[in-house]
Amino acid sequence: MKKTVSIIGASGYSGSELTRLLYDHPDVELMHLYAHGQVGKQVKELYPYLEADFVYEAYTGQTDSDIYFLALPHGEALSLVPALKNAGKMVIDLSGDHRIKSVKLHEAYYKSPKPAGAIMQYGMPELFKSKIQSTTWISNPGCYATSIVLGLAPLLTNDAIKETVESITVCATSGLSGAGRASKTALSYSEMNANMWAYKVGVHQHSPEIMQAFSYDVSSTPFAFTFVPSVAPFTRGIYTTLSLQLTKALSKEDVEKLYKSFYREAPFVRVQPNAPEIRAVAYTNFCDLHVGYASQNGSLVVISAIDNLIKGAAGQAIQNMNLMLGIDEETALKPGFLGPIH
Amino acid sequence: MKKTVSIIGASGYSGSELTRLLYDHPDVELMHLYAHGQVGKQVKELYPYLEADFVYEAYTGQTDSDIYFLALPHGEALSLVPALKNAGKMVIDLSGDHRIKSVKLHEAYYKSPKPAGAIMQYGMPELFKSKIQSTTWISNPGCYATSIVLGLAPLLTNDAIKETVESITVCATSGLSGAGRASKTALSYSEMNANMWAYKVGVHQHSPEIMQAFSYDVSSTPFAFTFVPSVAPFTRGIYTTLSLQLTKALSKEDVEKLYKSFYREAPFVRVQPNAPEIRAVAYTNFCDLHVGYASQNGSLVVISAIDNLIKGAAGQAIQNMNLMLGIDEETALKPGFLGPIH
Amino acid sequence: MKKTVSIIGASGYSGSELTRLLYDHPDVELMHLYAHGQVGKQVKELYPYLEADFVYEAYTGQTDSDIYFLALPHGEALSLVPALKNAGKMVIDLSGDHRIKSVKLHEAYYKSPKPAGAIMQYGMPELFKSKIQSTTWISNPGCYATSIVLGLAPLLTNDAIKETVESITVCATSGLSGAGRASKTALSYSEMNANMWAYKVGVHQHSPEIMQAFSYDVSSTPFAFTFVPSVAPFTRGIYTTLSLQLTKALSKEDVEKLYKSFYREAPFVRVQPNAPEIRAVAYTNFCDLHVGYASQNGSLVVISAIDNLIKGAAGQAIQNMNLMLGIDEETALKPGFLGPIH
Amino acid sequence: MKKTVSIIGASGYSGSELTRLLYDHPDVELMHLYAHGQVGKQVKELYPYLEADFVYEAYTGQTDSDIYFLALPHGEALSLVPALKNAGKMVIDLSGDHRIKSVKLHEAYYKSPKPAGAIMQYGMPELFKSKIQSTTWISNPGCYATSIVLGLAPLLTNDAIKETVESITVCATSGLSGAGRASKTALSYSEMNANMWAYKVGVHQHSPEIMQAFSYDVSSTPFAFTFVPSVAPFTRGIYTTLSLQLTKALSKEDVEKLYKSFYREAPFVRVQPNAPEIRAVAYTNFCDLHVGYASQNGSLVVISAIDNLIKGAAGQAIQNMNLMLGIDEETALKPGFLGPIH
Repeated sequence: MKKTVSIIGASGYSGSELTRLLYDHPDVELMHLYAHGQVGKQVKELYPYLEADFVYEAYTGQTDSDIYFLALPHGEALSLVPALKNAGKMVIDLSGDHRIKSVKLHEAYYKSPKPAGAIMQYGMPELFKSKIQSTTWISNPGCYATSIVLGLAPLLTNDAIKETVESITVCATSGLSGAGRASKTALSYSEMNANMWAYKVGVHQHSPEIMQAFSYDVSSTPFAFTFVPSVAPFTRGIYTTLSLQLTKALSKEDVEKLYKSFYREAPFVRVQPNAPEIRAVAYTNFCDLHVGYASQNGSLVVISAIDNLIKGAAGQAIQNMNLMLGIDEETALKPGFLGPIH
Repeated sequence: MKKTVSIIGASGYSGSELTRLLYDHPDVELMHLYAHGQVGKQVKELYPYLEADFVYEAYTGQTDSDIYFLALPHGEALSLVPALKNAGKMVIDLSGDHRIKSVKLHEAYYKSPKPAGAIMQYGMPELFKSKIQSTTWISNPGCYATSIVLGLAPLLTNDAIKETVESITVCATSGLSGAGRASKTALSYSEMNANMWAYKVGVHQHSPEIMQAFSYDVSSTPFAFTFVPSVAPFTRGIYTTLSLQLTKALSKEDVEKLYKSFYREAPFVRVQPNAPEIRAVAYTNFCDLHVGYASQNGSLVVISAIDNLIKGAAGQAIQNMNLMLGIDEETALKPGFLGPIH
Repeated sequence: MKKTVSIIGASGYSGSELTRLLYDHPDVELMHLYAHGQVGKQVKELYPYLEADFVYEAYTGQTDSDIYFLALPHGEALSLVPALKNAGKMVIDLSGDHRIKSVKLHEAYYKSPKPAGAIMQYGMPELFKSKIQSTTWISNPGCYATSIVLGLAPLLTNDAIKETVESITVCATSGLSGAGRASKTALSYSEMNANMWAYKVGVHQHSPEIMQAFSYDVSSTPFAFTFVPSVAPFTRGIYTTLSLQLTKALSKEDVEKLYKSFYREAPFVRVQPNAPEIRAVAYTNFCDLHVGYASQNGSLVVISAIDNLIKGAAGQAIQNMNLMLGIDEETALKPGFLGPIH
Repeated sequence: MKKTVSIIGASGYSGSELTRLLYDHPDVELMHLYAHGQVGKQVKELYPYLEADFVYEAYTGQTDSDIYFLALPHGEALSLVPALKNAGKMVIDLSGDHRIKSVKLHEAYYKSPKPAGAIMQYGMPELFKSKIQSTTWISNPGCYATSIVLGLAPLLTNDAIKETVESITVCATSGLSGAGRASKTALSYSEMNANMWAYKVGVHQHSPEIMQAFSYDVSSTPFAFTFVPSVAPFTRGIYTTLSLQLTKALSKEDVEKLYKSFYREAPFVRVQPNAPEIRAVAYTNFCDLHVGYASQNGSLVVISAIDNLIKGAAGQAIQNMNLMLGIDEETALKPGFLGPIH
């Protein structure tokens, strides 16, 4: 019998992508779509390309499904997860609520309190596959963090190389769906067409999540990790440039070999000979990586491209569910010849 | 009597912006528009918003104007400049032909030969105003270099700070007009809408021009200057993020003060309290700068935004002409309350 | 001495274009910018390309300027105009409040009451120049109506032709700035990029304004005037296709001749040999027209393109002011060689 | 055993969509991709989101597949089809070569000759399902014609209504993929962003195909069918507004009922209560229709939206193949809950 699955927070962009992908998933059955702001509306009123006859419901503590995806604004999942865990449900939280181990860092980062222990397995299959397979509670990575962690993992999980890293600079440009299903003047078409801007320049927003993924002592003295996020006029995608200053230079060939080896069993990571494009990963669960440069002076450039709503949210969440269910990791995510599509 | 001015290479995007801005310039008279590929066509056939009745002509060595702007593909200005200089003309070359002092570096960079001595004053008014005022031959800076040099100048012209610079990482995203009036599949609307890609990752393409501007010994051992250019779906603008690793940290306040002081007499550079936007500089000769971050660990972020066709090409070229003519630097470039306009 | 001018409702898109163009106008002096929702903010906080140091104020009945532009939402100008008229001020209302003569039709159209007599001269210079020159109160045409009326005027002001018109079909596609400085989900970049939709299909919304301009008896039995507005992914511009079914066919050549003759003294209307483009009129006060087809079977196609914020709003309003002031109609609107600019 | 299928002309946009959709089709096996301009290149070099290891080949008369899709420029299919027919192959031609019955009209329309008899069954399943099921040679409809014919069919296949039609006006706005995988300046991002233009205004280009679909005597005296195509800045989609002048008015309710009844067994046509959006049909095989207006004066508006590359090309071609193979019409085209996807 198929497992049943429900989505809490189904009406946002991550929620609608979960809806779309889970509906077509052969091994689960979509049961409820909860969205308190849209109760009673049909899904197709908001997403006219979604054709099935689902109606958004209010979530009031139901536990009649086997699996729960939480695609809520930060802070809202914290109070729902304990009851779902107690009821023995499989839980995948797409928010940041259960990502950061240190309560102090969480509160500094998200500007809201969280109870000690509100932490679940970090759901990045390329780094923690066996841990994911043996748990039932997942904290799904953030979209920026996904693009950055996958771009850095072959280097920073290698202790010999990790020691030579002096500084990391990250320029990451996101499509506007990253801001959610918004109604803000600054995100209107008239303001954003032909526009580009950075924000939260250098405030290290995602560094705890990223450094924790690599077992850095994130409470220690500052590390030269500089993060500059920006938005440009496209809807889907994150384009991330990672520049590393190393004390000991590596050749481009060796680095490329390292990346290919590291990701040899990762079906959704492609190490590309040329700089990636957003259009190559949009609507897919792929992360395209490119090792662009490894000079004699110790600087190295890695470029990473994902679809923020798929590999950066709904797709990775389903990949995690697949692993927890013990089924093929690619189920519903890679039906052969990928197109601008699942 | 007004000086007469002609444009050689008038049909490209830089040429058409020169046409538009010079036509409205109160102190010069536009005389000839040369464009060998468009001879006989009216300007408004290519640029329907340009209303005057100019017709593109073939350039065959005419010297009947006082001032010549050269907006030709790289390599084509080299052979024209000597005759124009000999005829006593004022020359402003927008190509890269006369920028790099070292013949060896020029040839490595542009992959084509140039004669020794083919060098003209680097036309960046914010750094070399008095030298520009006393010459009649200008090599106009490149668009990427303009956004980078203006973003770095207050730091790298200060010897005490310059010595503390360990590495510089530049992510610069250009609008597609930077590729010129092109007919390539990769630049078609269907390919580029909702797309983004980097190119020439880390190949240091503009570093000789930039390092030369700051009197670095560009022939010496490598300096950690990492440059990653990319394109995103907008027509005009360059959005540049500069990240510097310093051996001695500076406070954000001191850096901001330094920038404001450095540019206190530069009418087109605005030091902004927030991260700039492309829409704030598009169709203007402004360069907006923002000092975003200056941590205790020695990293510093500066963001720079320009219109690649105006401050990065035609506008800066006219600013240089104004200085050479001894008239107000802002003439035809800043009629008071700037709009999405000259 | 220069006339002084103030804008009530200065913070929307029409208001910001008025601000920009009036600031550079040589014959008037911009005095106050009123915007009740933005009091105390600097103009450049909303429009970073507008560089002067204006601050938005609250309008509380001041009458210290000579000229008032009203760029308010529909319904708000009705109560302000009587006092301004009594104080002897020149008034240009960009809203629909004073356009429709029939109170009954106004109320059916705008769904809000208006007093009898709240009507001012319809400010379309190409049709009513001498009336505009001899009044001081103007109701500025709507943007859709401007593109339609200019496209139809040579035919419908000709009684012999007007009699042969059986039906008129209008498809008009507007850029998203037509919806104003909005914060609606449906107008966000993520929803509108790569999208297009029609709205208010066939509800005849602008027909009273248009038919009144041509002295049709708008209260009489229905006329086959079908209007389908839509939006597409661009910020500025209206692209209007007018298709007329005539009982007596006209040749394309005769119609083109008629248009050129009709507009021979209209500096902002260009009859073009090819179908117009939005980029040819964006940032200008031009209306580009094209007579596309005049078959033997009595159908005729006219295409019209304007910038909705300039010729469809702020530019036409200033054109009207110029005429009322007795100065050159083109002042501040056509500085020679028009670019993507004023 | 699965039927084998090959695509001749596989590297254009229709060809790449065929590739993507056929690769995932459960009942056929993709065998060869022919593209003479790209021989030896991997598919993913052109379409990086297409992940399988196909290489483009040269077509030199091979007949080793069961089914051939021809996605060639107009004129090139004519010479290939006879041999494929003789070899007993199933053929689906996406070009215009086999659409028009009258050689004279074909030559006037396409400006190139064709032999008498070069005609195959018009592949519009919603009108000719049983004929398609009993043939093996299909001429696939054009993209504009698909959006127009589906929008008009319920009216023009009804003789009583058809007689009352006085005139039809069509404004159809296409995305830029309609121009193919192009390398033209006019279609570059820099020219087309924020732009819109009409072309071939009123030249009746598609009227033979459309009128033939409805058994009009296309060689007779002109019918008032006015067609104005335009392009706007999006990649996929055609947004078509159909305005009909009738001698006898119909109520909106009756027309809507007629449309719902006509399409009650058409799985890909949705009669919508509101004006359609491009984003609702992009990446799908849907045609969304809306009856917008049916006034008392005899005018009627119907709006139609499709993805030009799917329902207007590759999707409809596969729908035709499904019918010819006797399998479910929706196979590979509607896997349940459709997303921005197949």
